[in-house]
Amino acid sequence: MNSANHPARSADDSLDALFAPRSIAIIGASSDQRRFGGRPIQYLLEAGFEGPIYPVNPVRSEIQGLKAYPSIAEVPGPVDLALLAIGSDDTQQTVEDCIARGVKAVISYGAGFAEVGEEGIARQARLVETARRGGLRLLGPNCMGALNARTRFYGTFASALEDGVPPAGRIAIASQSGGYGGYLLRHLFLRGLGVSQWVTTGNEADIDVGEALHWMAGQEDNDVLIAYIEGLRSSESLLAALRRARENRKPVVVMKVGRTAEGSAAAASHTASLTGQDSVYDALFEEYGVYRARTTDELLDVAAALSRRSLPKGPRVGVISISGGVGVQIADFISDAGLEMGTVPEHTQARLRELVPHCSPRNPIDMTGLVTTNHDIMEKTLDAVFEADAFDAVLIFLGIAGAAPSMAGPLQQAIANAHARAPDRLVMVSVTCAPEMMREYDAKGMLAFEDPSRAVSALAALWRFRQTFEAELPTPVALPPAAPLNLPADGKLNEAAAKALLAGHGIRSPREALARDAADAARLGTEIGFPVAVKIVSPDILHKTEVGGVALGLADAAAVEAAVARMAATIPSHAPAARIDGYLVSEMVNGGVECILGISQDEAFGPVVTFGLGGTLVELLKDTVCALAPVSEERALEMIGKVRTAPLLTGYRGGPRHDIEALAKAISGISVLAASHADTISTIEVNPLVVQPGSGGVIALDAVIETRQAGSGDRHA
Amino acid sequence: MNSANHPARSADDSLDALFAPRSIAIIGASSDQRRFGGRPIQYLLEAGFEGPIYPVNPVRSEIQGLKAYPSIAEVPGPVDLALLAIGSDDTQQTVEDCIARGVKAVISYGAGFAEVGEEGIARQARLVETARRGGLRLLGPNCMGALNARTRFYGTFASALEDGVPPAGRIAIASQSGGYGGYLLRHLFLRGLGVSQWVTTGNEADIDVGEALHWMAGQEDNDVLIAYIEGLRSSESLLAALRRARENRKPVVVMKVGRTAEGSAAAASHTASLTGQDSVYDALFEEYGVYRARTTDELLDVAAALSRRSLPKGPRVGVISISGGVGVQIADFISDAGLEMGTVPEHTQARLRELVPHCSPRNPIDMTGLVTTNHDIMEKTLDAVFEADAFDAVLIFLGIAGAAPSMAGPLQQAIANAHARAPDRLVMVSVTCAPEMMREYDAKGMLAFEDPSRAVSALAALWRFRQTFEAELPTPVALPPAAPLNLPADGKLNEAAAKALLAGHGIRSPREALARDAADAARLGTEIGFPVAVKIVSPDILHKTEVGGVALGLADAAAVEAAVARMAATIPSHAPAARIDGYLVSEMVNGGVECILGISQDEAFGPVVTFGLGGTLVELLKDTVCALAPVSEERALEMIGKVRTAPLLTGYRGGPRHDIEALAKAISGISVLAASHADTISTIEVNPLVVQPGSGGVIALDAVIETRQAGSGDRHA
Repeated sequence: MNSANHPARSADDSLDALFAPRSIAIIGASSDQRRFGGRPIQYLLEAGFEGPIYPVNPVRSEIQGLKAYPSIAEVPGPVDLALLAIGSDDTQQTVEDCIARGVKAVISYGAGFAEVGEEGIARQARLVETARRGGLRLLGPNCMGALNARTRFYGTFASALEDGVPPAGRIAIASQSGGYGGYLLRHLFLRGLGVSQWVTTGNEADIDVGEALHWMAGQEDNDVLIAYIEGLRSSESLLAALRRARENRKPVVVMKVGRTAEGSAAAASHTASLTGQDSVYDALFEEYGVYRARTTDELLDVAAALSRRSLPKGPRVGVISISGGVGVQIADFISDAGLEMGTVPEHTQARLRELVPHCSPRNPIDMTGLVTTNHDIMEKTLDAVFEADAFDAVLIFLGIAGAAPSMAGPLQQAIANAHARAPDRLVMVSVTCAPEMMREYDAKGMLAFEDPSRAVSALAALWRFRQTFEAELPTPVALPPAAPLNLPADGKLNEAAAKALLAGHGIRSPREALARDAADAARLGTEIGFPVAVKIVSPDILHKTEVGGVALGLADAAAVEAAVARMAATIPSHAPAARIDGYLVSEMVNGGVECILGISQDEAFGPVVTFGLGGTLVELLKDTVCALAPVSEERALEMIGKVRTAPLLTGYRGGPRHDIEALAKAISGISVLAASHADTISTIEVNPLVVQPGSGGVIALDAVIETRQAGSGDRHA
Repeated sequence: MNSANHPARSADDSLDALFAPRSIAIIGASSDQRRFGGRPIQYLLEAGFEGPIYPVNPVRSEIQGLKAYPSIAEVPGPVDLALLAIGSDDTQQTVEDCIARGVKAVISYGAGFAEVGEEGIARQARLVETARRGGLRLLGPNCMGALNARTRFYGTFASALEDGVPPAGRIAIASQSGGYGGYLLRHLFLRGLGVSQWVTTGNEADIDVGEALHWMAGQEDNDVLIAYIEGLRSSESLLAALRRARENRKPVVVMKVGRTAEGSAAAASHTASLTGQDSVYDALFEEYGVYRARTTDELLDVAAALSRRSLPKGPRVGVISISGGVGVQIADFISDAGLEMGTVPEHTQARLRELVPHCSPRNPIDMTGLVTTNHDIMEKTLDAVFEADAFDAVLIFLGIAGAAPSMAGPLQQAIANAHARAPDRLVMVSVTCAPEMMREYDAKGMLAFEDPSRAVSALAALWRFRQTFEAELPTPVALPPAAPLNLPADGKLNEAAAKALLAGHGIRSPREALARDAADAARLGTEIGFPVAVKIVSPDILHKTEVGGVALGLADAAAVEAAVARMAATIPSHAPAARIDGYLVSEMVNGGVECILGISQDEAFGPVVTFGLGGTLVELLKDTVCALAPVSEERALEMIGKVRTAPLLTGYRGGPRHDIEALAKAISGISVLAASHADTISTIEVNPLVVQPGSGGVIALDAVIETRQAGSGDRHA
């Protein structure tokens, strides 16, 4: 049908019609430029959109100087995109009309869908089903539209453009929130920065923020991608977008809200989507080198710095300050941010002392107020430190001295002159001045900030991106063909069955055997060798210690017999309904480091593997790391290095090095198990998992596996 | 002499002459207003200083329209203060001349003293000795001077005043750095805020930042005190200042730089003073309710918010946003900041739905963009939430919608109207607009910020000050008369002597006795009761485990004899020079929670007591708290509550509650011991200190006490 008009293109075909349309209809078109049926027409005309614009309005023949049509059916030429500036009641029929007319994509601005409860959810479900069946891509509903500066497409009613459509820039934005998307747009304009593409996804009935970002990552006319995320229903599109962005070396800066319990509660009430567990996002962002901003200021600072397309080649920062006090402060920021204070070589210090005898030539360098009044000193100071190659970036604190119009010009020129002789160094300026003068510094090739702490944060972000782009993109872990699990009929696994399953995936347990009764246990203890541990085995009792179901360090057969007899006598009073499968007699494992290793399910991301040091402290310290399953052994080693207590494993205060290779294998192994059987296994908890010294391997002292069939049992009872 | 001219005043007398002088001489006076001998005269004239100004210059008879005098001796009237705008070579003689002339105070601007090394240090020492002998107070040298808006005294050459002397405000600033002090001044002016007093202390030969702050805390015309600190030589004046500020309910906001190792290194090279251990400052600031700002933006935000003199009566915040996305973000900030999202009652939600049917009436409240265009809805929304008394503070996010001049006025009025009906509630606004319009919001009684995260941080600071001012000022701990310690002649204490000393201060050790040899040890073990522990006792061996000098859980006399024999045979090869005093045989202490308790010396603050949970993890997790010694038992209980692992002591996951009262007694006791004998004891380390369950008390399993006489021995060998 209509596609015959287009030459063959990439898989992004259908989104090109949406985000780079060649012809546009506005259904519900209005002459009132303040209305959402009027504003997009105004913007499109103002920007000089080159394709045809077809206002559709049943009662007007002309709108904003354009010929209007009574219905979409009567529009003459082909229509890539229809903007629906209509209420939720009319949307279904209109979408059907659009499909009939051969329209390829629609943007639905209207509210009254999934965000308003039951009825709206049903309305939205019908709409998206219709669109999919008709091959129509749908942005929204309840969104603020999209823009694409290259094609002068401004399909939005965002008030951020009211003061005029700004020039194109090289920052692309995908936002779930229209309001926040507009807010960002406005702030970028205030900083003199333009955007290449901008998309708000609203209710995400069809296209979600990940798919929008994926399309942007494939466009050539942007250098920085920004995403605003409240929650995801599924993660595939986001993962694909992040991978594509990495492949194309496009830095991604994300604002993910709902970080805290308070925030998540608010996000759930605001959108129709689910907010994933926040640490999973952190793990994901770290894996892909995404920068997660905490505040809008930070997001804008980092995006602005990235838009200069120059990353520092190392972490060494030089500070040139006119105030010793601020120099010390900046050294604090640099240390906090994980950057380094570079060292000024002796001969360079001597050179600086020649320039200003009373200077402090060590980093932070204090050349006194002279550098701001004598521009030659500024230029020669920079030449000296650039020549010494002691710094990858230089932060010049000018404070209020860089603001006087008479002084700023020559000062900027002096800095720019020296910078031109060392163009691979990054030059930042902290200066208190009006925004217009700030732009002058920017225009001369420096990154200008007011507060030095913000300059340092932005620099740290740039350095992190540099490292990310130099590292290999992580290879996806291939899942083996999933072997059947041979679960019991009711899907419940007792400890012995759980351990057997883990043993099949490379995680061994202590030598142990299941005893029927006290005498049997004593016999098995003798076979295994004393001392032994005895634990009750029951699919209905998951927290054994709490019911007195664990006895450790039993030294002889008599002790074993007594312990089992006590359990058999007292446990039924704690857990009357519990089936007792027997008593597990195990070798005692002494020494080693106790860890916890587990699998949980994230609503959006599926199985997540979590690792942490164990013992009683784990929940108190929350010293754990997580990652999306499956993870490779390399990635697992990185995870191990990230817990604060990792030195306990790697040899702490003369202690032994433990078998972290075996631990990495276990982390990877359990993650592959969970990912291969994501439809069957819901959670796994190995606690404690003991990591032995040397190459002694790991031993699962206890394990709980829950299946989807069996549900959560009395896990949290 | 001159003091006969003044009525009797407080102990601040001598500083009044410095900071509120009634007559001023400028020595080294200049007609050139850009020079440090010219600028202060210009400022004083511009501001209309009412007392006499006497320029002193050997070759000029008139300066800036004032009669000049060839020397200080020839100035006609009494002189409270002389400003020394002269080089370091002339300063000594000039100070002597000032003393002879009866001048009460001087401000020395000149550099070339302690900050430039040996010669300068000697020059400064002589200067301060002369000043003290002559009863002359001295600010500087190497400082930028001071100002006092009430008396129109502008004794500074800070370029921050170049654009004109601004109106008086109610913020006072004491800064060790002149450059940073000027930077702060300028930023306050840019925000439309003035200062009451401003003092820069430079090299602090006589007056330090603490003394300046102490004077400010006694003045009536300020509401907020700001201090900028790089390091202190002694802490008494700062402690006195913080106490006085608390007594007068003046909030103190501090920027203390040199937080990190990088920063401290820089601070040491910049100033002549020592940077104290940073966590000691944190402990001190917390004790006195001082707010420590990390960045200048934060410092200014908090000071600006405080200058409104309105603190929230509780932590419950209501968020009214025109963008759901930003609302979620703000909820995150609120949770991070330790504030609470207030709950909107059902009937108020119903009322909000009446106003805007499609609103989100739960907190964060989203009334849609309608609140910004329909001001009546804004006013009624605020009335509804104020009436419900669900919030102590309201943060209204207007974003870019509050900026249009046509909209801002009526919007401000609507908010102010509702606020007038609930004046005890705090109203904050987050709005993107020009600074002038920001001031309009401020002028209508709202606290206006651009980024909502900064509004939330400032609010959290206000709430913290409210809590501080409602709490009792901590009572200083009275030290008992120090009993003599009866140290050995060489000042060295072995483990037994250290434990005996601690026992005298309420910290008991296990039942134990010192054995001469293996047979003796076996006999003592039988007396004490098995199992026992044996440890080598030597004043020369402090890390016993590392030389094989510890054996635990010895079950009978034979085991004890074998262990001691092994130590006697092998230890001399590890530590050939070690005197061996014997073998300590002790009862085994099982169970309890291992802690670490110690005393160290801070260069500025003296003895500091540190407490943390113990075991191998203490150094890894750095989960410790410290406080200046001595501390009361109440304060010690607060310290215990602050370590992250405190739940292990108070009953964690069904574990027992441990004897935290005895622990608090031990913390307080050891701190009193150290403070009473600060001249004798340098460090104490009790590790592990075992806290027993129930009311079992605490037991010191090991203790090391170092005296100043004995030095640190082989402590870190």
